[in-house]
Order: sequence, then structure tokens, then C-alpha cells
Amino acid sequence: MSSETIELSGHIIDSWTLPSAWDVIMDRGGYFTVDELRIGVHKTETSYIRLKIEAPDDNTLDLILTELQQFGAALVNGDDAQTAAVEQPGVLPPSFYSTTNLPTQVRVQGQWVQVENIEMDVVIVIDTEQRRAFCKPMHEVQIGERVVTGHGGIRVQPFERARERESFAFMQSSVSTEKVKVLAIHEIARQMRETRERGGKILFVLGPAVIHTGAGRYVADLILRGYVHVIFGGNAIITHDVESALFGTSLGVNLRSGEQVEGGHRNHLRAINAIRAVGSIEKAVELGLLKEGITYEMQKRGLRMVLAGSIRDDGPMPGVISDMQEAQKQMRAALPGVEMTVMVASMLHAIATGNVLPATVRTVVVDINPSVVTKLADRGSFQAAGLITDAELFLRELAEALSD
Amino acid sequence: MSSETIELSGHIIDSWTLPSAWDVIMDRGGYFTVDELRIGVHKTETSYIRLKIEAPDDNTLDLILTELQQFGAALVNGDDAQTAAVEQPGVLPPSFYSTTNLPTQVRVQGQWVQVENIEMDVVIVIDTEQRRAFCKPMHEVQIGERVVTGHGGIRVQPFERARERESFAFMQSSVSTEKVKVLAIHEIARQMRETRERGGKILFVLGPAVIHTGAGRYVADLILRGYVHVIFGGNAIITHDVESALFGTSLGVNLRSGEQVEGGHRNHLRAINAIRAVGSIEKAVELGLLKEGITYEMQKRGLRMVLAGSIRDDGPMPGVISDMQEAQKQMRAALPGVEMTVMVASMLHAIATGNVLPATVRTVVVDINPSVVTKLADRGSFQAAGLITDAELFLRELAEALSD
Amino acid sequence: MSSETIELSGHIIDSWTLPSAWDVIMDRGGYFTVDELRIGVHKTETSYIRLKIEAPDDNTLDLILTELQQFGAALVNGDDAQTAAVEQPGVLPPSFYSTTNLPTQVRVQGQWVQVENIEMDVVIVIDTEQRRAFCKPMHEVQIGERVVTGHGGIRVQPFERARERESFAFMQSSVSTEKVKVLAIHEIARQMRETRERGGKILFVLGPAVIHTGAGRYVADLILRGYVHVIFGGNAIITHDVESALFGTSLGVNLRSGEQVEGGHRNHLRAINAIRAVGSIEKAVELGLLKEGITYEMQKRGLRMVLAGSIRDDGPMPGVISDMQEAQKQMRAALPGVEMTVMVASMLHAIATGNVLPATVRTVVVDINPSVVTKLADRGSFQAAGLITDAELFLRELAEALSD
Amino acid sequence: MSSETIELSGHIIDSWTLPSAWDVIMDRGGYFTVDELRIGVHKTETSYIRLKIEAPDDNTLDLILTELQQFGAALVNGDDAQTAAVEQPGVLPPSFYSTTNLPTQVRVQGQWVQVENIEMDVVIVIDTEQRRAFCKPMHEVQIGERVVTGHGGIRVQPFERARERESFAFMQSSVSTEKVKVLAIHEIARQMRETRERGGKILFVLGPAVIHTGAGRYVADLILRGYVHVIFGGNAIITHDVESALFGTSLGVNLRSGEQVEGGHRNHLRAINAIRAVGSIEKAVELGLLKEGITYEMQKRGLRMVLAGSIRDDGPMPGVISDMQEAQKQMRAALPGVEMTVMVASMLHAIATGNVLPATVRTVVVDINPSVVTKLADRGSFQAAGLITDAELFLRELAEALSD
Repeated sequence: MSSETIELSGHIIDSWTLPSAWDVIMDRGGYFTVDELRIGVHKTETSYIRLKIEAPDDNTLDLILTELQQFGAALVNGDDAQTAAVEQPGVLPPSFYSTTNLPTQVRVQGQWVQVENIEMDVVIVIDTEQRRAFCKPMHEVQIGERVVTGHGGIRVQPFERARERESFAFMQSSVSTEKVKVLAIHEIARQMRETRERGGKILFVLGPAVIHTGAGRYVADLILRGYVHVIFGGNAIITHDVESALFGTSLGVNLRSGEQVEGGHRNHLRAINAIRAVGSIEKAVELGLLKEGITYEMQKRGLRMVLAGSIRDDGPMPGVISDMQEAQKQMRAALPGVEMTVMVASMLHAIATGNVLPATVRTVVVDINPSVVTKLADRGSFQAAGLITDAELFLRELAEALSD
Repeated sequence: MSSETIELSGHIIDSWTLPSAWDVIMDRGGYFTVDELRIGVHKTETSYIRLKIEAPDDNTLDLILTELQQFGAALVNGDDAQTAAVEQPGVLPPSFYSTTNLPTQVRVQGQWVQVENIEMDVVIVIDTEQRRAFCKPMHEVQIGERVVTGHGGIRVQPFERARERESFAFMQSSVSTEKVKVLAIHEIARQMRETRERGGKILFVLGPAVIHTGAGRYVADLILRGYVHVIFGGNAIITHDVESALFGTSLGVNLRSGEQVEGGHRNHLRAINAIRAVGSIEKAVELGLLKEGITYEMQKRGLRMVLAGSIRDDGPMPGVISDMQEAQKQMRAALPGVEMTVMVASMLHAIATGNVLPATVRTVVVDINPSVVTKLADRGSFQAAGLITDAELFLRELAEALSD
Repeated sequence: MSSETIELSGHIIDSWTLPSAWDVIMDRGGYFTVDELRIGVHKTETSYIRLKIEAPDDNTLDLILTELQQFGAALVNGDDAQTAAVEQPGVLPPSFYSTTNLPTQVRVQGQWVQVENIEMDVVIVIDTEQRRAFCKPMHEVQIGERVVTGHGGIRVQPFERARERESFAFMQSSVSTEKVKVLAIHEIARQMRETRERGGKILFVLGPAVIHTGAGRYVADLILRGYVHVIFGGNAIITHDVESALFGTSLGVNLRSGEQVEGGHRNHLRAINAIRAVGSIEKAVELGLLKEGITYEMQKRGLRMVLAGSIRDDGPMPGVISDMQEAQKQMRAALPGVEMTVMVASMLHAIATGNVLPATVRTVVVDINPSVVTKLADRGSFQAAGLITDAELFLRELAEALSD
Repeated sequence: MSSETIELSGHIIDSWTLPSAWDVIMDRGGYFTVDELRIGVHKTETSYIRLKIEAPDDNTLDLILTELQQFGAALVNGDDAQTAAVEQPGVLPPSFYSTTNLPTQVRVQGQWVQVENIEMDVVIVIDTEQRRAFCKPMHEVQIGERVVTGHGGIRVQPFERARERESFAFMQSSVSTEKVKVLAIHEIARQMRETRERGGKILFVLGPAVIHTGAGRYVADLILRGYVHVIFGGNAIITHDVESALFGTSLGVNLRSGEQVEGGHRNHLRAINAIRAVGSIEKAVELGLLKEGITYEMQKRGLRMVLAGSIRDDGPMPGVISDMQEAQKQMRAALPGVEMTVMVASMLHAIATGNVLPATVRTVVVDINPSVVTKLADRGSFQAAGLITDAELFLRELAEALSD
């Protein structure tokens, strides 16, 4: 029998941390004894438990400890985080520790150091001299960098469900379509207001259906009122937005009358071509060619759109990034300060954003297709609250809720 | 080789009748020769074609003629419709003609007679003396009644796509979610206004999600403004509506705050129990127990709700019809005068209504789940225009569009 | 401040009962103190907790106690269950206790009595003389019967997740389509084998798509091999099954070639008419008219099909029950002995069956549409494990897995 | 009034070309007179029509002629295709002609020349000297190249529905889930056999769910039997395939037991890291590190996988193309010889492949989510036949159907 003693503290009762931990231990074939348990009985009090874990062998104990880490467990007799040096550029040492998107600390020379720019499925590089720890994606690690390995000396701060009336709670329980959505939308509006007031940035991740359904005008309105600080999207959203601004159509459908005015994609190609002819979006705004829409409003305010290309793109529109590593880099660079994310009608970019977003950023995913929400959660963005509804009517209602 | 000559006339070009007819002939293994073709070149002109059809055998020719009937083909040398007498109650003669939901005429003693109360998948009974023809469901046919058999002497008027700007056309093409829905909703509102102005009745078919999502208030508002004349639904819609009126909840969720205030279904049972205790909805309104909601507004105006029970019901609520034959009978009885139907968030009742509705009634199906629209079309209600959107936000927008 | 002391015991740690209970107390605005806690550290040991609950007022305390009951909490100083007499037939006393589908006991004269035929959303009637307690739906309560009210003296046995490798666990976590389904199907097969071996009955709930997709043959095969003991369904499943047996088609589509051989629903009406002409399914089998298919195989073995009509039915087929109260009664009557339920491609009948099924019956819901599983769970059948897959290919694989 | 005379010939009756053409003329506000009509009455005969089209103005006439082109209409008095020179690299002349994915000819010096490598939404560049015409995406056009403009001198060969029993027809009608899929799968198998026998290549487009659901083994089996010649996919499919080959898991789920063996994505990162460490897939196979799976089987046979990166990728795996223009180029380069495409569980890569695929390539899209098929059709890949079913069970059945 192998054994180890761990501690858990914080809102471990009401955040379901403690039962989840017990579950893991038993699911993996271990046993536990409660050495000490103090339950905080008032809202503001935290709880504490010290557990002795036993497992039939070292491997099992290891697996259990790895998983408990995600709940914030720390070894009572902990050492520094172990590291190994990178020996080939872009190749990790074999026993690398793979991050979650939860706030994480590593013990460096006896002290807990916060990992900077936390995101999921990357590694932690430690700079011992500066006592700093950073996240790095695999392809960016350099020879000689010290990558954290194993699971000792790592502490993850679990997702704590606030005890106060959890604003998003009613959306989180399931992906049911049978809920009062107007309430949810007004709650989202309230949180956007709060976020803006305290100086936090709001990131919108947008799919092209936003434009096809004529909802671009509501997003433009939100930008104008200061509720959008960064946009992530792709070639389609910008192209249809520009098509709509230049020709009043999206995929050839007139957005005012709903009628098909052009066969298929010609206007969409014309829109790209028009911007390519002047060289850039900046130039098109400057020349007075582009006079409305999401892209125009963002450009006019100097706000950032990170537009990542994809394999299905026509064009592409100037400003769309063709190289995926570069695009991810720019997405990461745009995240500091973002405290809330609203993802609308975009599966690809929603998942991509989920990959680089810390779990602490409030995230709402709006889609008419429940599978988008399911997929996002399947891929680790458990903090995302899903709202299964119509993108167009959602944005219309949101813009209205924020119009005064 | 068997052969027969048929005629087709009307808007057979722009309603795709002619190509559909050609298709059927060739798909079934027949050949055709165009004896005469006159194409109407202006909007108001109709076209005419006389086709000689050849088929390898009588069976094939029969199959072809049966299908062509649905496009309005009539034999050039036609006889009266054939009939056979019912010999057992509720049992049809073997070669009975099964109707479509398109306007249909039968030849009785040399004259074309309109079939009354046309609906799909029933039979035509002819009263030769009175020169009348009616639809009857199988289980209602009586011994001695004369049921139309074969396919001679029957003329179906095909669904003619209006040449003018087809208001619902943009919804009909497919079940895509990527369309401008606000436009579609305003078009529906316009048609509701027109229907009401010319004295036509509007039928709403409602599923319980209308109440769960808090959208009952918008329907109540539409009733109040005179845009709802008949409602079809089930036990769930009335029960949740009454629950909402009495306790402010739906399935125990407070519709103002979105919070669960009661475990599961208790309020829903309490609502049924409260009405059962006073005996009926009428009495509950009279006693001042029921003071708001869809049911209240309908009752107050003497408007009809046909509520058909289902196997999943609790209760049931007084007024809900437990016997399915009786419920279908009452649905049929409520149809005269109905010129438009709006189906929201209801698969079961939408399909049931589709079954008894003539194809000439404008029908809109609104659901967040595309499969509802697909299923309705699969089951023969091809005239239904689908709008894949959120029921709650749809009704909110519709009520707003009709509020002035 | 109001307060009360409760006890919880059993697998309250690994079944998440304890954390759920804590959650409820805090969510509802109460506080708790742990008076005693004993944690079972081995698989076979149970745990025990005694909690003192405090709430700001009596109403809140009441609400908390009601909810805790569902987790199996019992008042330390408990009394007998309270009852009130029924005063109008089919009308409950105002403070009636509404059941869950979990095993439930009521205290009658100081003794805990198991409630018979437990199902959700009905009431408990106590026969004090006989010391028995039964479930009854609202519309069946009679004058003078004593219905349980309030929440004292009621004990619910929570759903305990077995600690052994939970066979269905991998299906339960979410409704993801991205799982290895062949494994799940073979696990279902294994459980069906076990159920049959120990003499338990297996109930199949079937929607018409089973026949449309040509999968009727696999179900017939399962009946033949003794894996189906009861079938619940509607008019559509039996009608299409008979249509398929008589004409080789379903909705006019030839099930061997996939070709449309008849316009729309005529064969379907012919099938109903043929059985109506001879009077019943029994007679049709006896006369050699019906010689294959699900209905035939069930009839030949004297097995029960409870076929509940619905508002969308044609016909109906003899044997289909038109009255919904009667149909529910027959469904309830067919349940004793059922230990496993497989629901395939049926939303209406799946929900209806969920309503009358105890939570202790293993339930699998198979549908290509994730919303069916979501809806079933939303309506209280939390024990149902969902498998999002193709009904036809599921049944083919299941029949193959059980073929040896 | 403006007018023009056009000709249409071929299977214009049974391919619905003629009625579609009439529809366009009338929908756009034009009129027509039939100058000559010859209808082919036997299967092998083609038809011919000469129509005089009138429109209220030149713009309308233009719009009509543009759309009729897609149906194969040619001006009776046609001239050569017009061209304009490219003046900026990657920027088109304003009135560029945007292609469809149908076989297209342009008139060059009085002769009809076939456009090479036809695909949708690109332009046609004419090399007058060589009398050749090519497709080019916008970003590849060079200064001085002559791009086709306007709509004169262009002839599109419409999609002709074969009169013989159309093998895919039963899948094409709609995206219903209620069809006999085993039949469809065997039909697809038959066509794959035929394609292979006549030396045509078969392209598979695969999403990661193919691996998550454990269906990778069936694809490996199809490769082994010679039914897969090219694969298009992304980082996820190759990574999960390698993860599955190296560790037996996909996203940490053991594909044999269905159990989660590793928290989240670690094995997936380990798989990428392992290949990065040796440098390439080729090397990994050579060293005996990679010994099974899709990637291994393809590599061993020297078959091509074009793996296009995307913004949501980890890693990436060596061999995945990060630059989107480069990836599209390689997809195009892999297409010659491809006569059939099977797309499974991939929305992004399915749409991307649809973009570069001529309409003449038989295409099947298999997905459990109907919206994938709808989206593909919405984006112009109308030739794709959709099969709404489970990817895993589809591939299992397909592999079995092709196993002898």
C-alpha cells in the first residue's frame, strides 16, 4: 500500500470540491481517512480537511494525486515543483505537467509562485532566478527552458461557486431550451455593465451567422455604447460584415428585404476584392469606402479584432491571419484585461477561444444548436454558461437591454 | 402498352406542376408525348398542356395516374368518380381513395363537386342525392355510405405558388437557421393583420415550452389584441398556464426570477387540483380564482381552446379531452373559418393539426429544433413554412410587431 | 430562527447525497452544524451524519426539509406521516405530498411502511388498518381516502450510485455524441442478458422510426430470443409494423429497396383497414393474415403491447387505446416485474413511461436527437442513461450482440 | 424593354433545368416566349428549347442571363468571353465572373474551351495563346493575367439527374433521419467498389469524432482494403489517431473499455510530443514507434493525408499545415483523380473540401447532426448527399459491407 496525506481548504463544501475529491479517490481504487475536518458554517467561512489517501500501488496513488491537484489539493509534506530542461526546440520533456485553465501556483524554492497567463493544455516554464512561472504552448518551448514535470509542488485553485446568488447558475445546470431566456439576457446585460464599470474588457467571439441573420447592427450598436473591447472571429464574419456594409447583402441575401439579390457568393468575393484593392481595412475606412458595420466601428475606435483564417476561407480579407500559430499568438496577446466573454454562433472560434481563456473569465456561449455548448464543455471550458437560443434575437434583446 | 390522355391547366409552369408531372411519369417507367402546350406568358395567364401517357402495363399506368391527380391532372375522357358501399362500420372498401390536403373535386353525375372539409389521409363519402361530397376519417364511416374508390373522376387542385412576391417564400426554401428572422416575424405579423381584417380566424397551436420560457404573457397579449381565435394544445400548456397564473411558476420555476421555488412538479399538480376542486375553468374564472394568462383571456372572450390529452399527462386539467377520437372531432369542428395557423414549440399537436388542416391554410411552424419542421413536412404538411428560432423571443417580437 | 435536526445515512458520500444536502441548505438560506459524522472508508461501509439545520423562518425551514427528504433525510424526532381525507372524488387535500420516483417509506403508527407502486408526481394513500401505503394519481382518489400531506414521517431512499464499476456511468455523464457506442451497446446487451437470467422483465418503448428505418426486424429478432417482455408504443408503431408485414412498406417506402412505392399514407391506411376488417390483431394472426413483424411475434408469445393512442393518429388500429386514463392504467398494470427499460426513437412514449416508472428500473434512452434525452431528464427521469445514436444501427448492433 | 434569345439543351426536362429557368425569368421580373421546344420522349433522347427573354431594363436582363448560365443557357448570338487584365496582384477586375462548381466552358476565339480544375467561388483565367482556361482563387491572380468578366461566352453544364435509378436519390430528398440507412450504406459501398474498379480515387474527409468513438479501426481497415486514396482532415484527427495508436486512448478515454484513464488532454499532448521528438510521422513509422491506425496505414502505402491546421489546435502534430493558403493549395493538388468523397463527422473540413470540389464528384456527408448537411448545402455543395447517422456505426457497417 502506498499512502500520502493531502490538505484541501477554501469553499470546498459549497463548491463541491470535497465530494469530488472523495469521488476521485474511490473511483480510482483508493481509500481515505479523514484526519481532520473543519466545516465553515457561515457564508464567509472557509472549510478545511486533511485526508490520508491510501492506494494499492504507487501508480494509482500518482493518478489520484494528479487528479486531486485540480481540486486544489496540496501535499502536506510538499517539495518544490520538479522541472526538466527542454532538449529540442518545441519538444517537451517526457513527464511534462499539462495545465488546466484554473489559477495555478508552483512552489519555487519553497515559495508559492502564481503561474502567469494560465490556459489549458500547455506547460509551465519556470524562471528560477526571477521566481516567475509562465504558460507556454508546446511549439514555443526553447532549448534549456525548465518545464514543470510530475505533480509535486503544484497547487490549483479550484473553481469556487460563489455562495451569493450565482448569476449564471440558472444557465449552467443543463443545456435545456425550456428556460426563461429574457431573464438570462438581462442578467448578461447586467454583468456586462458591471464589467465595463470596473474597467474590465469584454471579448466577443462571433460567427458569420451573426451577419447572415442581420444581427450585425446590434453588435455595432454594442460597440458604439462601449460594451465590446475585443472581437475574435474569422474571415467569414469580417467578409460578410463588409459585404453588408458595401452592398447591403450577406451571402447575396438582402438584409433589409430577405430576398436573394445575387447568385451565391459573388458579393462576398466583391467585398474582399474591394478591400484588397485599397490594401487594408484601415485604408478603406480612411478613404470613406467602409462607412458602417462591426469592422468599421471597431476600427474607428482603435479596438482590436483578431481574425484567424481557416481552411474554408475565400480571399482572404486583408487583416485575416493565415498562419495558425501566429493567430493563436495574437489571440493570447489580446486577452490581458478581458474579464468577460460572449460567444455567439461560432463553434470553431468559440472552442479556440476556450483553449486560451483562463477559467476565471466569465463566459457565455449563445447558439441555437445545443451541440456547440456540449462540445465546448467536452473540450474543457467547463466554466462556460450556455444559452440555447437564436443569435439574432439574442443580440437584439441584449442591445435593447443595454440601450439606456 | 397501356395509354391514357390527361390535361393539366392553371399555373402549371411557375408552380412546378408540369415538371413534377413529367418527373412522375418518367420515374414510374412511363413515357409521354406532348399533344398540346400553351404557355401563359404573363403573370395573370394560365397555361395548358395535354399529354398522352404510355406505360408498359395497366398497373404502372394506374400508379402514374394516381400520382398525377395530386398535380391536378384530369383524364380527358373522364367518367364519374367510382364508389363502393361500406359493409362494416369503420371499415373501408378495399380500393378506397385516400385524400390529400389539397382542394379536391369529384365528378358526380357528370358534374364536378367540391369535397367539403378536405384533409389528408381520410376518404371521400358521396351523397349522390344531395350532390355533395365530404371527408370522413376511417373510423366514422357507416354501413351503406358510398366511399370513393380508384382514381377516376377525381380532380385535385395543386398548390399554386403565387407569382406575386411570395411572402413566405424565403422561409420555405430550407430549414436553415441562418436567415434574417426579424423580417420573417414582421411578415407573419403583416399576414396576421390582413387575416384579421378580412374576418379570417387565426389558430395558434402551442406547446408547454411557451409557458416554461415565460412567453405566455405575449400570447395573452395577442389574444387581447384580437389576433388569436382558436387554440389547440394539450394538458401541459393549460396546466402550466394556470400554474403560472396562480403561483407565478412553471414546473416550479419562478417566471419572474428564473429561480426554482418548488421541487419538481408540485405546483403543477396544485394548479390542476385547484381547478378540479371548483369543477371547471369557467367556474374558476367566474369565482375570480383565475385572473390572468392565456386560458383566462380565451375564456373571458368566449374563444375556443381544444385541449387534447396525451399519454404523458398528469391530472388531467378539467376541459382536457381524454378520448382521442373525441378530441380530433372537436379539432375538426373548430377549423371552419381558420385562414392562418401559427404553431409554436409543439411537435405532437403541430403534427396532429397538420393532419386535419387543408393545405390552403397559411401555416407557420416555429421551433428551435429543426427536426420538428422536417417531421411535419415528412408527414405531408408541405405547405407549412418553418422558422427555426427561439419560441420565447419569437413571441416577444411578434407581440411587439402587432402592438400598435 | 427555526431549527430542526436530521439524520442521513447510507452511501451518502459516494452518491453525492451529503454535498447535495449541504447545497440545498445553503442555497435556500439556511445554516447547518455537523453534530456527528462517521465516514465509511471501505466500499461496503455506509456513512452517517447528524445535522442541525437552522433557518431564518419556519417557511424556509419547511422548504429545506421538503427538499432534503428527497435525499433520504429523516427528522431525528419524527412523527407519523400526516394525512387528510379526500372530500371530492379526484380532488386532493390542499397540502398533499407529491411523490418522486424514488423508493419511499411513510411512518404509519410508528412503523416505516414501504409505498407500493412508487412513481413520480402522484400522491400516497394510506390504509391504516392494513398498514399499507399506495401511490395513486390525482384523478383516481376517492372520497374518504387518506392522502399523505406535509413532509413529516416520509423517508425517501436516494438514488445510490453503486461503488462497483457503474455499468451505465460512462453514458450518464453527458449527452455527448463523441463516445464509443459499440461498447455501450454491448454493455446494454450484457445487462439485458443478466436481467433475463434472473427472471426480470425487459420493457421496450418504441417509436415509429424503428419501423421506417427498417429496424423492426431486429426487434422481432430480440422478441424471438426472449429479450422483450413488454412493449409500450402508440398507433404509429403498430400500424407501420403491420403495414411492413402486409405490404413490405413503411409510409409507402419499400423497406428492402428504399424506394417510394405508394403515394404517402395509403398503405398505412390499408393496413389499419385490413385489421379492422377482421376485427383484431389476434384474429389477423389466427387467420394467417399477419405472419411476421413485432406485433406478430409478441401476439404469438402472448406478450403484452400497451398501445396508447394520440391526437395525431389515423385509424386507429384495433387494440390501440383511445382513452388516455385507461391507457395509463394499462401501462401501470404492465409494469410489475419490469427491471429494465430500453426506449428507442420515441419522445412521447418515453416521457409517458418515465412518468410511471420507478427510478430503480434501469433505463436506457436511445435517440439520434439529443433533445429527447435532455427533455426526459428535465421531466424527472434522471435515472435514464442516454445514448445519442442511430436507432436502426443501434438495434442492428444490439440484436447482433445478443444473437449467440 | 431589353431582350435576348437563349438556348438550352440536354436533359433539361428530367433534370428540372427548364422549369428552374422559367422560374428565374419570372422571379426576376422578366417574361419569356417559347420559340422552339423539342422534348426527348425516351430516356436517351435529350430536349431542346429556344426562349426569347424580355426584361424591363438591361440590369434585370443581365441578372436573368447570369442566373440562366448556371442552368447551361447559352446566348444564341454569343460572342467570346470577355476578359480584363489583373492590375494588382491578388486583386480582381471589378466585373469578374465568379464560378460555380459545375463543369464550365468559355468561348475563346470562337471555340468553346473547358475550364480546368473547376471549383466554386474562384475566377477563370484565360491563356489565349494556348487556348486554355483555368480556375484561380483571388489571392493567386498575377498582374497581367486575363480574368473572365461579365457573363457572355460562358457555358455551364448543369447538374443532370441521371434518368436511370439514381443511386443516391433516396438520400438527397431531405435530411430526414427516418430512412433505411443500412440500404444507403450498402449503396455507398457499391459505389466505392465501382469507383475503385475503374481506377477512380476515393477521398475521405474525417473529423476527430471518428477516433473518439473508436471508429478509427474501421477506417484503417478500409485503407488496408484499398478503399481510401486520399484523406483530408486536421490536427485533431491525426493527433487522436496517433494517441490511440500509442496509448490506446482518445482524449484520455480508453477506446477498449470506455473508461477515462487520464485527466483531459495529457495523452493527446504526449502523442504530439512523441512525434515532434522524432521529427515526423515518416520517421515514427520507420522507427517502429507508430505501428497502427489510420496515419500508419496511409503512410505505409505512400498515400496522401492533407492535414490543415486550425485556430483551435494544440501542438501541432508534425505534418499539419499551419498556413491556410498553403493548405488549400495542397488540398487542390490532391484532388486530380478523385471521383468520390466520403465526409464523416467533420463540419469544418467538409465545408472546406466542398469549396474546392467539382460538383461532378460523388459526395456523401455523414453526420449525426443534421445541421452539418444543411450548412454544406447552404454553402453551395448541393451535390452532396446527406446521411444523418452515427459516424461510428456507419463506418462499422461500411467496413463490413466492403469486407468480402
